[in-house]
Amino acid sequence: MSKVRIHNFTISLDGFGTGEGLTFDAPFGHAGERLHQWMFGTRFWRAMVGEDGGSEGIDDAFARRHEVGIGAEIMGRGKFGPQTGPWTDLGADDEWQGWWGPNPPFHTPVFVLTHHPRPTLEMEGGNVFHFIDATPEEALARAREAAGGLDVRIGGGPTVVRDFLAAGLVDHLHVVQVPVLLGRGVRLWDGLEDLEDAYDVESVASPSGVTHLNFTRR
Amino acid sequence: MSKVRIHNFTISLDGFGTGEGLTFDAPFGHAGERLHQWMFGTRFWRAMVGEDGGSEGIDDAFARRHEVGIGAEIMGRGKFGPQTGPWTDLGADDEWQGWWGPNPPFHTPVFVLTHHPRPTLEMEGGNVFHFIDATPEEALARAREAAGGLDVRIGGGPTVVRDFLAAGLVDHLHVVQVPVLLGRGVRLWDGLEDLEDAYDVESVASPSGVTHLNFTRR
Repeated sequence: MSKVRIHNFTISLDGFGTGEGLTFDAPFGHAGERLHQWMFGTRFWRAMVGEDGGSEGIDDAFARRHEVGIGAEIMGRGKFGPQTGPWTDLGADDEWQGWWGPNPPFHTPVFVLTHHPRPTLEMEGGNVFHFIDATPEEALARAREAAGGLDVRIGGGPTVVRDFLAAGLVDHLHVVQVPVLLGRGVRLWDGLEDLEDAYDVESVASPSGVTHLNFTRR
Repeated sequence: MSKVRIHNFTISLDGFGTGEGLTFDAPFGHAGERLHQWMFGTRFWRAMVGEDGGSEGIDDAFARRHEVGIGAEIMGRGKFGPQTGPWTDLGADDEWQGWWGPNPPFHTPVFVLTHHPRPTLEMEGGNVFHFIDATPEEALARAREAAGGLDVRIGGGPTVVRDFLAAGLVDHLHVVQVPVLLGRGVRLWDGLEDLEDAYDVESVASPSGVTHLNFTRR
């Protein structure tokens, strides 16, 4: 059976997976780029944005696992864009194609969870966005079918990750904890009391200052 | 100038410094002993409770710093006992002398923050408990005077640690993060947005599974 995996999901020390005040200019709200600086320094990221160099240590090793053996992604609507409510109420927003330009970094089918479905969006590089109104279980069944035997990645944001964890659907969770205190935003860990009972947990600190937390289902 | 230090302050992965439901039998509420298992294995702890053996690695090295160069402690009333409100309303509770038996592990003056002062309590081993109704600044001034040039430790619980951090009074903070999700209790990090701006932060993972977070004032 293909696995359900979460990689490079980054939170602040106080547990926020995104800041407050998401806008078109600020996909992570007041958090800005503070949560993801650890990744920008890796060779994995540099290559993705067409740059040379980058670290090849622990942060890079973890970051790369994001890609390996994944056949589909499930994401929340907030990861696709900052809009809420019906797309058509937002004028030009129904033409919104995500934050990533013409060739997003997924290269698989992507299932965007939303109460406001819209037509499937095909983009370059094998990126096909399906907009579905579904429970975690239903979304996973569709993503598994699309993944052709490969694993399914839950891409975030924090609410979607939490929902899949609470439903007991996640086989592997990789969280990166950054030593900043955001103070406000959307928390990852709420409502997950005793989650660790079902997982082996391994913590590894990186010289970059972040801590990699790995939950692997027993 | 003597420093203000916090050591071995332990939180869950979701940021709770204590659980819900403190009672005489459960000083950390529903958290039980899950937050402090990492310390029970150290040689430092074993010696304190009169046992042989124990680990002498990273957890032990950090745990021992609790003692070094400390001349006084400030703690919240919740660390001294589970009672709230006036002591005399609680019958025999005005005879309560803390959780620790006749010789508590502080061996210095201890200032217990409470809105309900009571007479000073002298116990064995140099433990003298003063019960004071004071702001963090006032309490620190009294503790510094009593510490005879040595450092002052803020002993917790989470609300008191947070109050001293928010007031900008802490020189060194050592937090131990344990990979359990308590789900409820009292959070350490609330209201401390951007705290890291004033500190160098170093994270170190221990083979025992906990992560030691060290904040040292710049």
